[in-house]
Amino acid sequence: MSIGTFHTEAGAAIPGAEIAYQRFGAFAGEGRGSNNVIVVEHALTGDSNVPDWWAELIGPGRALDTDRWCIIATNALGGCRGSTGPSSPHPSSGVWGSRFPALSIRDLVEAERAALRALGIEHVHAIIGGSMGGARTLEWSLMHPDFLDAACAIAVSARASGWQIGIQSAQISAIERDPFWQGGDYYATDAAPLEGLAAARRIAHLTYRGEQEIDERFGSQAQEGENPLGAFRSPQQRFAVNSYLDYQGAKLAQRFDAGSYVVLTEALNRHDIGRGRGGLNKALGSSHVPTMVVGVDTDILYPYHQQEHLSRNLGNLLAMAKVVSPVGHDAFLAEARQMDRILRNFLHLAQSPGK
Amino acid sequence: MSIGTFHTEAGAAIPGAEIAYQRFGAFAGEGRGSNNVIVVEHALTGDSNVPDWWAELIGPGRALDTDRWCIIATNALGGCRGSTGPSSPHPSSGVWGSRFPALSIRDLVEAERAALRALGIEHVHAIIGGSMGGARTLEWSLMHPDFLDAACAIAVSARASGWQIGIQSAQISAIERDPFWQGGDYYATDAAPLEGLAAARRIAHLTYRGEQEIDERFGSQAQEGENPLGAFRSPQQRFAVNSYLDYQGAKLAQRFDAGSYVVLTEALNRHDIGRGRGGLNKALGSSHVPTMVVGVDTDILYPYHQQEHLSRNLGNLLAMAKVVSPVGHDAFLAEARQMDRILRNFLHLAQSPGK
Repeated sequence: MSIGTFHTEAGAAIPGAEIAYQRFGAFAGEGRGSNNVIVVEHALTGDSNVPDWWAELIGPGRALDTDRWCIIATNALGGCRGSTGPSSPHPSSGVWGSRFPALSIRDLVEAERAALRALGIEHVHAIIGGSMGGARTLEWSLMHPDFLDAACAIAVSARASGWQIGIQSAQISAIERDPFWQGGDYYATDAAPLEGLAAARRIAHLTYRGEQEIDERFGSQAQEGENPLGAFRSPQQRFAVNSYLDYQGAKLAQRFDAGSYVVLTEALNRHDIGRGRGGLNKALGSSHVPTMVVGVDTDILYPYHQQEHLSRNLGNLLAMAKVVSPVGHDAFLAEARQMDRILRNFLHLAQSPGK
Repeated sequence: MSIGTFHTEAGAAIPGAEIAYQRFGAFAGEGRGSNNVIVVEHALTGDSNVPDWWAELIGPGRALDTDRWCIIATNALGGCRGSTGPSSPHPSSGVWGSRFPALSIRDLVEAERAALRALGIEHVHAIIGGSMGGARTLEWSLMHPDFLDAACAIAVSARASGWQIGIQSAQISAIERDPFWQGGDYYATDAAPLEGLAAARRIAHLTYRGEQEIDERFGSQAQEGENPLGAFRSPQQRFAVNSYLDYQGAKLAQRFDAGSYVVLTEALNRHDIGRGRGGLNKALGSSHVPTMVVGVDTDILYPYHQQEHLSRNLGNLLAMAKVVSPVGHDAFLAEARQMDRILRNFLHLAQSPGK
């Protein structure tokens, strides 16, 4: 889906921008009026293939019932799953690499809006998203409140916290310090910063999972067949948790582009509902889209107090829900039973928000 | 202070090992019996100069009253502040570098014990330590219960948790991935892995401070004179929190050796009170040294539930105290007023633990 030349919030241009999307379920209703579209926003390394990462929540009879709703998901601008990002061809030569500009969450929303308009959709029933998808959902409700009937923002905050910016920047640094990164222009070389990307993911993963869950699963056990207590330390003789993190890092490095990881992580650093709107609470208070806020009690990355802050200050709070889980941030992906009830409740409330 | 050839728990040898120490206050009593010695154990990048990092807690009239107590602090084996570590001369050639073996917390205790014995001290009144110092304190109470009258273990756990091992290994990885690290043998080269060490410290620092404290101090503000929201991301255009973390990283890289950082971080990975003692709770239950446990309510690195676990299972719990602070793990260094009361209370209770 071409969206033409995209202009970023900070003043750069991306000519010939493309946004990938997928649709699940048949459209019904008016493109500019009432219809059955629900936009689902993916998280940092997710994509438009919602059944990949919310398998138990989307499909016939499921909470996101594709017999009833038309679920549309785009791949974020800057990503690497079909939308234009650093690894995409540059209009003049080669690929974008370091020429790809910085994006904000607002840019991701504007690019998505352009894609939806190109599909003839000027209004949707609801927008739902967790983590980076939650940040996009909140921005949608403030940038284009008339575009949606209701919003569901999951495991997110009103702006990036200092701690989040710090730990996210540590991930960017892990990639930048990889000699194969080449300042972001590694695409024409024989090598990719896979080690740096894996290191970034290992750090990130420790913020996606609950501290107690990680300990209950791995504790200080040795990886089977390895001895992490030998006379000399060796990266090949690991604790079980490090084998797990190595696996998570390597898996992401195989499926995701380091340049996109940096661009989208930086977009999370720039997430700030209050920017240009008189501050956080004034911005939240101005929201008139009925919005449900969902948090996870053990979330390290977006601690529950951040969702409490949202719920206290949003101008039109539809409901608040807490996922109770040892899993931490990823519980919005992992706790399907609880999320099923939450999403069903959201869609029920969203049909009569004034009640 | 030479301790001769040191044999590690995992079976390596360190010939000609030296342990640096400092004493504050005059010794009184018997080296093998009752005396006024309090051993203070430093944290990961601390050293034997206690007034440097506990300035308000040590000195005449202070909680660690040097008019009354003889405070002794050693620098940990493997360190770089006077004790033998990877940057020390190797008996045969050059410096130790990658030839320096892995150490456990128990090794640090045994090396310290050898140093104290060389000073003629076979018994002390108390041992006090926080973080890595708290791990040493706990091991002291189990390895040599007759060596001390009482123990105060602060902001520590019975063993490294899976999460701790993960985040600590991320720091080791940040150093190993620095091309100047040279597998640990950078000492004869012109360069040191300062970037890797700084990256490790930036990650570590985010676990030393409370999430809300970091946010209250820095939020998503820009560093003065820099613009982190420009059209292109640049490491020179920073959020304030990243400037702060860069400063913390660079400061450590100037004063600490990367090899020592790896060895001591690995010792924290291997911290496990239960190893060879029938498991965690059997080990803790066997302890008969009166032990005070101190935790911090906002500690991310050693969450308070870990100190609750210690307090529930230690065989001879003297008292439990909670530092209430936004600061997180570092509160045991930063909250001098609260720590003053806690240490005074500990020393009071330690004088009549049977009451």
